[in-house]
Amino acid sequence: MPELRKDPIVDRWVIIAKDRANRPQEIATTSQTTSSAPCPFCEGNEAETPGELLAFRSTGSIADGPGWRVRVVPNKFPALKPTGDTQQTSDGFYESHSGIGAHEVIIETPRHRISASELSEDNLREVLRAYRERLIERRKDRRLAYGVVFKNVGGAAGASIEHTHSQLIATPIVPPAVCAELQASLARFRERGRCVYCQLIDQERAAGRIVHDESSFIAFCPFASRSPYETWILPTAHASRYEAISDGDVTALAQTLKRVIGKIEQALGHPAYNYVLHTSPFHTPELDHYHWRIEIIPRVTELAGFEWGTGYYINPVPPEEAASMLREVEAEVAETQSLPARETG
Amino acid sequence: MPELRKDPIVDRWVIIAKDRANRPQEIATTSQTTSSAPCPFCEGNEAETPGELLAFRSTGSIADGPGWRVRVVPNKFPALKPTGDTQQTSDGFYESHSGIGAHEVIIETPRHRISASELSEDNLREVLRAYRERLIERRKDRRLAYGVVFKNVGGAAGASIEHTHSQLIATPIVPPAVCAELQASLARFRERGRCVYCQLIDQERAAGRIVHDESSFIAFCPFASRSPYETWILPTAHASRYEAISDGDVTALAQTLKRVIGKIEQALGHPAYNYVLHTSPFHTPELDHYHWRIEIIPRVTELAGFEWGTGYYINPVPPEEAASMLREVEAEVAETQSLPARETG
Repeated sequence: MPELRKDPIVDRWVIIAKDRANRPQEIATTSQTTSSAPCPFCEGNEAETPGELLAFRSTGSIADGPGWRVRVVPNKFPALKPTGDTQQTSDGFYESHSGIGAHEVIIETPRHRISASELSEDNLREVLRAYRERLIERRKDRRLAYGVVFKNVGGAAGASIEHTHSQLIATPIVPPAVCAELQASLARFRERGRCVYCQLIDQERAAGRIVHDESSFIAFCPFASRSPYETWILPTAHASRYEAISDGDVTALAQTLKRVIGKIEQALGHPAYNYVLHTSPFHTPELDHYHWRIEIIPRVTELAGFEWGTGYYINPVPPEEAASMLREVEAEVAETQSLPARETG
Repeated sequence: MPELRKDPIVDRWVIIAKDRANRPQEIATTSQTTSSAPCPFCEGNEAETPGELLAFRSTGSIADGPGWRVRVVPNKFPALKPTGDTQQTSDGFYESHSGIGAHEVIIETPRHRISASELSEDNLREVLRAYRERLIERRKDRRLAYGVVFKNVGGAAGASIEHTHSQLIATPIVPPAVCAELQASLARFRERGRCVYCQLIDQERAAGRIVHDESSFIAFCPFASRSPYETWILPTAHASRYEAISDGDVTALAQTLKRVIGKIEQALGHPAYNYVLHTSPFHTPELDHYHWRIEIIPRVTELAGFEWGTGYYINPVPPEEAASMLREVEAEVAETQSLPARETG
């Protein structure tokens, strides 16, 4: 069973997950690399994954067979596992927690595509709906505190399988980065009586770091971008919890996400990238001080010793310049990027 | 001029350094890769770097010419620069600081070597002495708060030049990771009346995660290792400030460092790695609660979206197993790893 361990001095948690060591390293070095091994995520290869937890499929098709559009399965090499008791151990010096949780894979399309920008808006809308459904489902488990949805594209972004997919990891402890955001945003709310992220939207508009601002979602390169072309997408109306997103907003988000990723890929030549959904913990009410968002991080610089040792980041591209460039470039049309469906088996 | 920017919500700093974008990407994909371009760090190519700040050289040799054993120069593409005024700007929402600081390169040997383990103990001793001398020198500048010494080996660890070197970056603000360590260790000291790192040494000995423990330095794989085979080296006697290290301890540290890196390279097949020196801020007295150390991080797993978004790390190798393996393997003898000096020019 995996184990969560806290550093005995600072507030840093590590998941010790031996099973992950067995993961096949089908690492793509760029988002354009293809591999010749059969892809476990392509339609027809459903037997290569654990049984599905959710699928949007055509009428009459059968679970764990072909006929799906979006399919959610347990990760075969999970960082955390849903069975077992919540156990916290402390000997007064070292603190650990049993690795209870969930680790799911959202397979975004039955065809062998590499990036979310290659999906149709309809397809991407179902992916975003799947995030919502799975967060709602995992939230029912009172042992779990938080669900993080994220996406790795390309080997440099930590992807071990090329076929476009997202992941959901539900954890028994609210992650340190989210705790820091919740605490800081609460303090700011108490000072000013307003959500600091709502204020951020106004400030970023005034500062000219906007990438896209045409619907109920806004995209900008934040003032303190850690990475060149880092881009955040937020709902313009206050909302602390992704799971509460309406179907209408799912459509608008799918449009914005596809367009913004397309622009980043056009500007940087299809880099490896991550995106991460930051949302409220499972068991809090709707929060006036917190605001959900998606952070997109192109992985074009390596974290070196300085970043590891200090918590500082070095970014050679001012976000004003990145935003200006992203405003100008047109997202590539998905069709020109599509690859033929790969032979399966 | 570079600029330090604070995230408007959480305590996260970014250095926006446009000049870094001009850096040649002579990225080595593994620590064993060689490049055919002339190496700016090899003896004979001194004109390729800015003028030296310090060099240990043979009698009669001339500054910025051949005849040196260890040579320290300003980084040609600095993240921070030593000229200009300290300026802090805040508009009530965004906070920034002028990028005053220093960025130096410690060229560890005149010959084209790739890893610190390939250096003789005498050579490595002079490298460690250069760290001490440069920290003492930068500390004289009252505008600067902290000096971090680090090393990147291999492209995956952020190295852009293969020839073995370390770097020193001096910053006008104590880095967030160091602040967190100082605060947490002070709180623990007040609770227990003892340095928590001194206590850690006892605890790690008892837990069997020791890699090497034969001198005034101890090496172990910490309880909450973020990365497979992460190894820390600490002086066994309490010491908060690296600059105060004695010449005798420099010798013992050179032996330990060479041996531990050699073991990691033998166990993992010469991976990319970083090491980072954690020490006290420049302008504090000797601290009873803080303890300097070197953290070595083999870069064998990629940070993916989950880690970026949460602050959690996933480590597939329990540190007990890593330590056991590192105790068993013998460090390779340096001579077998040496490459012939590369033709310069």
